[in-house]
Amino acid sequence: MSTEKVEIFDTTLRDGEQVPGCKLNTSQKLKIAARLDEMGVDVIEAGFPISSPGDFKSVTEISKMVKNAAVCGLTRAVKKDIEVAAEALKYARKPRIHTGIGTSDSHIKYKFNSTREGIIDRAIEAVSYAKKFVEDVEFYAEDAGRTDNEFLAKVCTAAIKAGATVLNIPDTTGYCLPEEYGNKIKYLKENVTGIHKVRISCHCHNDLGMATANAIAGISNGARQIECTINGIGERAGNTALEEVVMILRQHPTLNLTTGIDPKFLYDTSTMVSREMGMLVQPNKAIVGANAFAHSSGIHQDGVIKNRETYEIIDPADVGVTESAIVLTARSGRAALAYRAKKMGYELTKLQLDSVYNEFLHYADVRKEVVDNDIHEIMELSRKNRAIA
Amino acid sequence: MSTEKVEIFDTTLRDGEQVPGCKLNTSQKLKIAARLDEMGVDVIEAGFPISSPGDFKSVTEISKMVKNAAVCGLTRAVKKDIEVAAEALKYARKPRIHTGIGTSDSHIKYKFNSTREGIIDRAIEAVSYAKKFVEDVEFYAEDAGRTDNEFLAKVCTAAIKAGATVLNIPDTTGYCLPEEYGNKIKYLKENVTGIHKVRISCHCHNDLGMATANAIAGISNGARQIECTINGIGERAGNTALEEVVMILRQHPTLNLTTGIDPKFLYDTSTMVSREMGMLVQPNKAIVGANAFAHSSGIHQDGVIKNRETYEIIDPADVGVTESAIVLTARSGRAALAYRAKKMGYELTKLQLDSVYNEFLHYADVRKEVVDNDIHEIMELSRKNRAIA
Repeated sequence: MSTEKVEIFDTTLRDGEQVPGCKLNTSQKLKIAARLDEMGVDVIEAGFPISSPGDFKSVTEISKMVKNAAVCGLTRAVKKDIEVAAEALKYARKPRIHTGIGTSDSHIKYKFNSTREGIIDRAIEAVSYAKKFVEDVEFYAEDAGRTDNEFLAKVCTAAIKAGATVLNIPDTTGYCLPEEYGNKIKYLKENVTGIHKVRISCHCHNDLGMATANAIAGISNGARQIECTINGIGERAGNTALEEVVMILRQHPTLNLTTGIDPKFLYDTSTMVSREMGMLVQPNKAIVGANAFAHSSGIHQDGVIKNRETYEIIDPADVGVTESAIVLTARSGRAALAYRAKKMGYELTKLQLDSVYNEFLHYADVRKEVVDNDIHEIMELSRKNRAIA
Repeated sequence: MSTEKVEIFDTTLRDGEQVPGCKLNTSQKLKIAARLDEMGVDVIEAGFPISSPGDFKSVTEISKMVKNAAVCGLTRAVKKDIEVAAEALKYARKPRIHTGIGTSDSHIKYKFNSTREGIIDRAIEAVSYAKKFVEDVEFYAEDAGRTDNEFLAKVCTAAIKAGATVLNIPDTTGYCLPEEYGNKIKYLKENVTGIHKVRISCHCHNDLGMATANAIAGISNGARQIECTINGIGERAGNTALEEVVMILRQHPTLNLTTGIDPKFLYDTSTMVSREMGMLVQPNKAIVGANAFAHSSGIHQDGVIKNRETYEIIDPADVGVTESAIVLTARSGRAALAYRAKKMGYELTKLQLDSVYNEFLHYADVRKEVVDNDIHEIMELSRKNRAIA
């Protein structure tokens, strides 16, 4: 089976920016967009042009700058939104309008005070109108995660007929579990007329911690685009994390799927986005967290020193991290201590190590982390104790 | 189908503490253990007693204090480790020794320089020895995620025969995808002699962002214990997050699985652990992140104001968060602005709102977030502008 490509649709600048306190100005957005383009993102969702003059300007400038990726602007199923998005995207080499409407019973009733038939009409109208401006129109069925599959298939069939090139199936509230979301994509593949002509896209939210797992379930069932953000940022608990998707496909060649992303950029891009947005990445974040490649327990450190692959499935250098950080704490064993000591120039016999290790544990029990300066002190104390004994 | 209970094995104080810079002293560990016991955790893994005198003391004191949960201590498949753990656990009402050994080819070769037969012998020896001290012995097959299923079944069969009451199947390196991990549990259920007598436990790591999804796949295939930590902390990218597991089972009643955890404690416990360890929780962390229930885009805010359930699947109060925070940014729409203004005492006509909203967007484009004080200024400016016009 030959390897198929999954397109990466990055929405760091749109859904990712929908975060309290994380708004970016145009020059920040341009900086991040340039990096996304450089690292191999297929589609950059640059913003929601009608939402504010600042966002309109950002989408316009990004459209002018981006060289390789398609540039996408979000709209509601509203003519004015679509016109403004088309205007903002007019300089893009590959413009895409992303339009759509809520399809779950909750959205139909409470947001639109409408009916299923009314929603299909608005979907057709929006896609048809967007097609007047651009060839590439992505349709989203908002809250598809809680939309019943039969109705969802009808909406999708109508959107394709109206000219949609990509069908986005968002789990807007982050409710689905992977099996459920995967089955939804499978159902659409089997029940939507014209589905072979379009690309299915996964847009998953992380409210239950399932955003990445759901997206992977989606592509395992036939979707070929993932909407994601750097560091998994976005509304509420965020979106699928770009770095996780990229590394899962790399580490699991049996999926026969790949992306166009160069993983060497992952760590640095994570840091850039975190800094520009003032949005912290927790140390235990997969792939890009400060501790992602740090080993602190004795058992693990001993293993990694013997052979990196005993506890590391990813070579940190692959994602742009220069070396595994071996951090010494009270959970560290003799092997880690000896390894660090050796790096610092101390060659210890087994007997010496026993004595140094005891001293080390006293230090480690009162300190959170034992650093190189402490090691020098420990060596000195241990030497004196041995001299006395 | 009646609802079955999944036991929650919290390892915040053991695997969670295996984090650079996060070491806790005994009084901190006692404080957290008391909370874990209060919120309904079934098993508290209190530490790795042989690793340091401080950790031995912590496990001893926790054993004396805990009222309801079983208290567990980690060991390698080494007699001295098991003796020391038994000693530390001697005051526990329900003591459990957690012993085991690496079973993947990588671990057998590089860590132990042993053979498959040699590993089975050591596993039997460790479990049998632990049984001399306590009735409840959990066996872990380290790196089970990368161990071939046939050999893993042999190890598990031997461990059960030697007296293990719980079988822990760790995806130590965080390599598995949910389908793969679920199938592994299914294989063991079908191929391990005596499996009906024991509880299967999922211990998953988050290196590819799959820790929670894998644990859910595990219990969907017959496991009945999940090893997890508060905030998903732990070695490298951390472990399955306790709060995610608890809320997934609550929000998905069709799984027919439940836990004994009172979710009201989730937010406060997350904050407590983060503070005690100095380990940040990122704002976009599921369930407990600062933004988990914050809506910042206009479309979402409009929906939530019409009906909370359009964009929120969890009532924040259920996890101890007092209200959804509606944060105003340049992505916010008129509805959110009007909602906030109304809460502050300003009733606006549609025409007034148009004028105020324009003013608001100018503010929002230069500020990251518009706070209540800004709203007062915006109202005043807008009033003056209208007076001039």
